[in-house]
Amino acid sequence: MTTHQKRLEKYAELALKKGVNLQSGQGLIINAPIEAADLVRIISAKAYGRGAKNVHIEWSDELLSYMKMKNAPMKVLETFPKWKAEGLEEMVKDGYSLLTVYGPNPDLLKGVDSERIAKANKASAEALTEYRDYIMNDKTTWSIIAYAQAAWAEKVFPGLSAEAAQSKLWEQIFKITRVDQDDPIQAWEDHNERLRQAREYLNKKQYKKLHYKAPGTDLCVELPENHIWHGGSATSEKGVEFNPNMPTEEVFTMPHKYGIQGKVSSTKPLSYGGNLIENFSLTFKDGKVVDYSAESGEETLKHLLESDEGAKRLGEVALVPEESPISKSGHIFFNTLYDENASCHLALGKAYPTNIESGPSMSKEEMEKHGVNDSLVHEDFMMGSTETDIDGETKDGSYEPVFRKGSWAIDLE
Amino acid sequence: MTTHQKRLEKYAELALKKGVNLQSGQGLIINAPIEAADLVRIISAKAYGRGAKNVHIEWSDELLSYMKMKNAPMKVLETFPKWKAEGLEEMVKDGYSLLTVYGPNPDLLKGVDSERIAKANKASAEALTEYRDYIMNDKTTWSIIAYAQAAWAEKVFPGLSAEAAQSKLWEQIFKITRVDQDDPIQAWEDHNERLRQAREYLNKKQYKKLHYKAPGTDLCVELPENHIWHGGSATSEKGVEFNPNMPTEEVFTMPHKYGIQGKVSSTKPLSYGGNLIENFSLTFKDGKVVDYSAESGEETLKHLLESDEGAKRLGEVALVPEESPISKSGHIFFNTLYDENASCHLALGKAYPTNIESGPSMSKEEMEKHGVNDSLVHEDFMMGSTETDIDGETKDGSYEPVFRKGSWAIDLE
Ligand SMILES: [Zn+2]
Ligand SMILES: [Zn+2]
Ligand SMILES: [Zn+2]
Ligand SMILES: [Zn+2]
Repeated sequence: MTTHQKRLEKYAELALKKGVNLQSGQGLIINAPIEAADLVRIISAKAYGRGAKNVHIEWSDELLSYMKMKNAPMKVLETFPKWKAEGLEEMVKDGYSLLTVYGPNPDLLKGVDSERIAKANKASAEALTEYRDYIMNDKTTWSIIAYAQAAWAEKVFPGLSAEAAQSKLWEQIFKITRVDQDDPIQAWEDHNERLRQAREYLNKKQYKKLHYKAPGTDLCVELPENHIWHGGSATSEKGVEFNPNMPTEEVFTMPHKYGIQGKVSSTKPLSYGGNLIENFSLTFKDGKVVDYSAESGEETLKHLLESDEGAKRLGEVALVPEESPISKSGHIFFNTLYDENASCHLALGKAYPTNIESGPSMSKEEMEKHGVNDSLVHEDFMMGSTETDIDGETKDGSYEPVFRKGSWAIDLE
Repeated sequence: MTTHQKRLEKYAELALKKGVNLQSGQGLIINAPIEAADLVRIISAKAYGRGAKNVHIEWSDELLSYMKMKNAPMKVLETFPKWKAEGLEEMVKDGYSLLTVYGPNPDLLKGVDSERIAKANKASAEALTEYRDYIMNDKTTWSIIAYAQAAWAEKVFPGLSAEAAQSKLWEQIFKITRVDQDDPIQAWEDHNERLRQAREYLNKKQYKKLHYKAPGTDLCVELPENHIWHGGSATSEKGVEFNPNMPTEEVFTMPHKYGIQGKVSSTKPLSYGGNLIENFSLTFKDGKVVDYSAESGEETLKHLLESDEGAKRLGEVALVPEESPISKSGHIFFNTLYDENASCHLALGKAYPTNIESGPSMSKEEMEKHGVNDSLVHEDFMMGSTETDIDGETKDGSYEPVFRKGSWAIDLE
């Protein structure tokens, strides 16, 4: 076995144990590009080894997705197959875990009419609402891991051959996910413990507001009453601990949908539906984007914001110290799973219901009352840097430092 | 572009034009192993070029199928997902064509309990009954083409490297499907014309019975009244001409389900559910298998025959001259699409309703009355050789030569 194969084996093991934490008798859905067949086969073999009752693969191929996005009539793009949505729903309701293997070409849809992409995304989001709610409410365990697909690797490491770029990207992936360590499972337990401390500190504080200051950013974010900070591992409805994202460096909660004021500037490009939005800023009034601009991809940003009413409001506030391994790597990955774990970020769109007490069982009316944002989209964008200062405003109106120069201003082990 | 790529392009073109004959505005389902991604991408690009509204790929992976067949609990194997069957049905009813890219490893399921395979096959056949009826009645256009997957190629050309074996198998595929000729489209038109002559000759004759004589074979096959011989191109309900199999060298019709008497011996191995059945013979009385034996794979043969009531009766009688390019190649392909076009064959199981007048609209009762066999299986097995003689018995009881020493005894251009 080559070193690379050994690491893929460890990576697969980690994804099953610390990612979805697959239990004997459970089914597993794997979303994966056909390019990732080697990893998918290893994961599947290990899943059956752990007693999986079935491994269902939803294969995809970027070149075929591109052809469809480019050529299919709008009517076809706007119609997500109902039978597919029902199949996915049926499986998660039957207790299947969901593992997404993810490494898209960031430039895939460059040049494709952004309205077509937005319509297709909207159709799939609508059709998959129930399925996605199931996942976002942690009713089953789920996880996203990366795969160093050639086109992605060439974007991160331009000028190299596809093979060399892939091997460099794998090196980064294995390092950042701690797969290169002797005992990755233990390393993840330690890491989860540190994130647990950060979230418990913030949960005890119950800040009323967070105040962000950085170049181009002067933002006040209100947090709803009884908000909950999550980070690291999560726990499913059935009590199974899992890691939704690998890597993960963030602790995050939800903002109050009517409580955002001021301006925020992005610090990293946002790749949306295969198109890049760069150096953009958003101005909020009472939680809603009232102005925006972007150095490039402004049209794509417009489509994102206009997806629906909730796309103009925030659904996530996440804190990530700049000394995270991803930030330290110095690379821009053009991949949200990696880049979002490099920096503090916010998300436009839907809030995770688990980020507020009783969230998963709230009616639409209760969500509205508590300021929980809803939308068909959920898009993280990075706005943290080594110049980011954040203060927490307590209930009595005093300010406490939370972040200074992009790092925690509180004590963690 | 390499020679191989140019040939793949011609092959893809042929599959779309002469195979499914895809029309502008139609959708296309492609069943394919992920290993065939290069060909699938070429076909898809050309399909959109011809105005396809959508190309839906049903990817599969043999190693994953193997793992599932080996590990999943029986309850999972016995349950074909209803949502998937409904999705496929929905598409063909919406006018989608179906192209199957096919090149399985003949030894894939060796060592897997044949009862598990039979149960899984039965579950999928049951779930897909409506979908398969749609296809078998030519309500839409459909076609099967081969792809030289490594494991298959290594079986056909043992002792070579995977790459060398694949390249030799591609050579055979391109030759046998006439892709190596200057104008494959014209070559297929000429070929279809010869098959048209053979089937029209037999349709005019309306033989009451066929009498087979060969070493180990002495068989009388009754043909139902108003049986129809097909061969070469078919015509869909909407009047579109297509080639269901590429290659195809056969003309075929249905036997009367109660009218088979005598013994038949196989001349080529039968690969069923990944297991080989070799040198077997079947004895029929009043259409039903009353005795059987096999030098190897007898257990698999037993499971095949016991799939259901109709699996013990015949559903197809096919005539193929031994000078067909596949027979002349001298290879055994361990692949029904190829081997069935090397020799005269019969099929156990379901008859194609289009092989009898008004077949597609017959009720179960009418099918029974006319001797049309029904089953969840349809398995071709080869029983022709250079020693096969076949006589046709006319309505007045006289005998006419149809085949002598494995070749047509009638005049064709
Ligand atoms: Zn986040
Ligand atoms: Zn997020
Ligand atoms: Zn046949
Ligand atoms: Zn057949």
